[in-house]
Amino acid sequence: MRKAIAKHLKDFRNIDVTPEQIIVGAGTEYLYGLLIQLLGFEKKYAVENPGYSKISLIYKKHNVSCDFISMDKSGVQIDELENKAVDVIHISPSHHFPTGCIMPISRRYELLGWASKSDSRYIIEDDYDSEFRLIGQPIPAMQNIDVLEKVIYINTFTKTLASTVRISYMVLPKHLLHKFYSELSFYSCTVSNFEQYTLARFIDDGYFEKHISRMRNYYHTKRDTLLDIIKNSPLAPYVTIREENSGLHFLMKLNTTLSDSDFCIAAEKKGIKISALSSFYVNPPESA
Amino acid sequence: MRKAIAKHLKDFRNIDVTPEQIIVGAGTEYLYGLLIQLLGFEKKYAVENPGYSKISLIYKKHNVSCDFISMDKSGVQIDELENKAVDVIHISPSHHFPTGCIMPISRRYELLGWASKSDSRYIIEDDYDSEFRLIGQPIPAMQNIDVLEKVIYINTFTKTLASTVRISYMVLPKHLLHKFYSELSFYSCTVSNFEQYTLARFIDDGYFEKHISRMRNYYHTKRDTLLDIIKNSPLAPYVTIREENSGLHFLMKLNTTLSDSDFCIAAEKKGIKISALSSFYVNPPESA
Repeated sequence: MRKAIAKHLKDFRNIDVTPEQIIVGAGTEYLYGLLIQLLGFEKKYAVENPGYSKISLIYKKHNVSCDFISMDKSGVQIDELENKAVDVIHISPSHHFPTGCIMPISRRYELLGWASKSDSRYIIEDDYDSEFRLIGQPIPAMQNIDVLEKVIYINTFTKTLASTVRISYMVLPKHLLHKFYSELSFYSCTVSNFEQYTLARFIDDGYFEKHISRMRNYYHTKRDTLLDIIKNSPLAPYVTIREENSGLHFLMKLNTTLSDSDFCIAAEKKGIKISALSSFYVNPPESA
Repeated sequence: MRKAIAKHLKDFRNIDVTPEQIIVGAGTEYLYGLLIQLLGFEKKYAVENPGYSKISLIYKKHNVSCDFISMDKSGVQIDELENKAVDVIHISPSHHFPTGCIMPISRRYELLGWASKSDSRYIIEDDYDSEFRLIGQPIPAMQNIDVLEKVIYINTFTKTLASTVRISYMVLPKHLLHKFYSELSFYSCTVSNFEQYTLARFIDDGYFEKHISRMRNYYHTKRDTLLDIIKNSPLAPYVTIREENSGLHFLMKLNTTLSDSDFCIAAEKKGIKISALSSFYVNPPESA
């Protein structure tokens, strides 16, 4: 399966890795825990703010220090990483959740520059839904431009296949790989062999790529239908749509006097489930 | 699957639990990590000495304090638990690895007595191969006589089905269950649904019980053959066999002037792989 994933990464993301660099686990949540054991409990971890709240929760449940780094339009802010003395920053540069922001190449280099300043610094690149970018080429991974072995790339089949398929993987830089095999390879792999063989065949025989492409069309049509409905509804004058090209969700800016939570509750009463951007902030800014 | 496991536990081990008390994970190693998150990183953990070295390694890799408790013929020694201020003791009372020792009921009550003296104390009962006891009834689980909610029962399908099937479970006492669901249920289950449905059917339709019974006969025959060969070999006068009724391995005491490691190396050269008991001790006693 690791051979199949390596080939897929080369073909689809232009990521050039050996099968040995790929560590498989039953879900990214499990891999985060394994990474803490690899990188160290004494390190200072940080996540994006706003962000996917489960990630910081996992760090906290593992009893490690986890801070929040504010985002500007390009991604996490470098000066805040410096000020908060972060060692390991966990980001999703290809498609940030929930803002949909794609980290520009300039910020990527700045981040790699930040990481290069200390041996203890690493970047965890969570590429959870890059496959579903609806328009244009997939955004290159940071792993691609990392020559200093600072980026740990993580992805999952949970988003692309089904949430009930618990197969994820991370790509370790070579010097960490040595540490992993000497210190943590006593762990049994958490994914059953049967599922590994099945997925390997699924990828090798081209079904995975076909599936992605079918699902991308499916989500594309779904999104277009939804945007058309909004555009042709009485809601149209109050609405601006943002970041709609990069995955499975988009942002809708609403001109309303209702508070975020009141609006969400009112929508839910009509059978529409939406989340307010403010709910993904640790300390929501006033303008969120 | 949890319903099927609950029924199996009732039928096979006379353990009476609700499906909600059963927490499923991709291997016991994963569950140990989850238990640390549940019971606390500040607690003092301990394992049996001699014992299965992976267990203490997992505690150490999770950055928690883990000590070793000496075994006498009945199991871990209570006074050492007290002296070393242990909170959580990880044991395998039904069949200790590697000595094969079965903890007598007296020591079980003493251990429960020890645990009852502080809210922070727990017993992890690792029942990894109770299904393969070759002679007599299965030894009752400690979980059976625990009315103070001090025992966390752990078992796996890895030993009974195949090492490549990563499905294990733990049974939480009710007060811990509440803590688990409020603090840790945000984690996705690490076992894919497909495998869960398959195993549930396998248990419900009686195949698991048949499989256990077939494998028990298989291992019984294998052991008898091996013991016969030893008994009828020139080795016989130098050998005493111990603890041969309780599972997948037995102890062989050898009258030899060779050191443990020299003997193992000599045997391996002849194509026979054995492990010396001394290699499972943290500090091997002279008489081991």
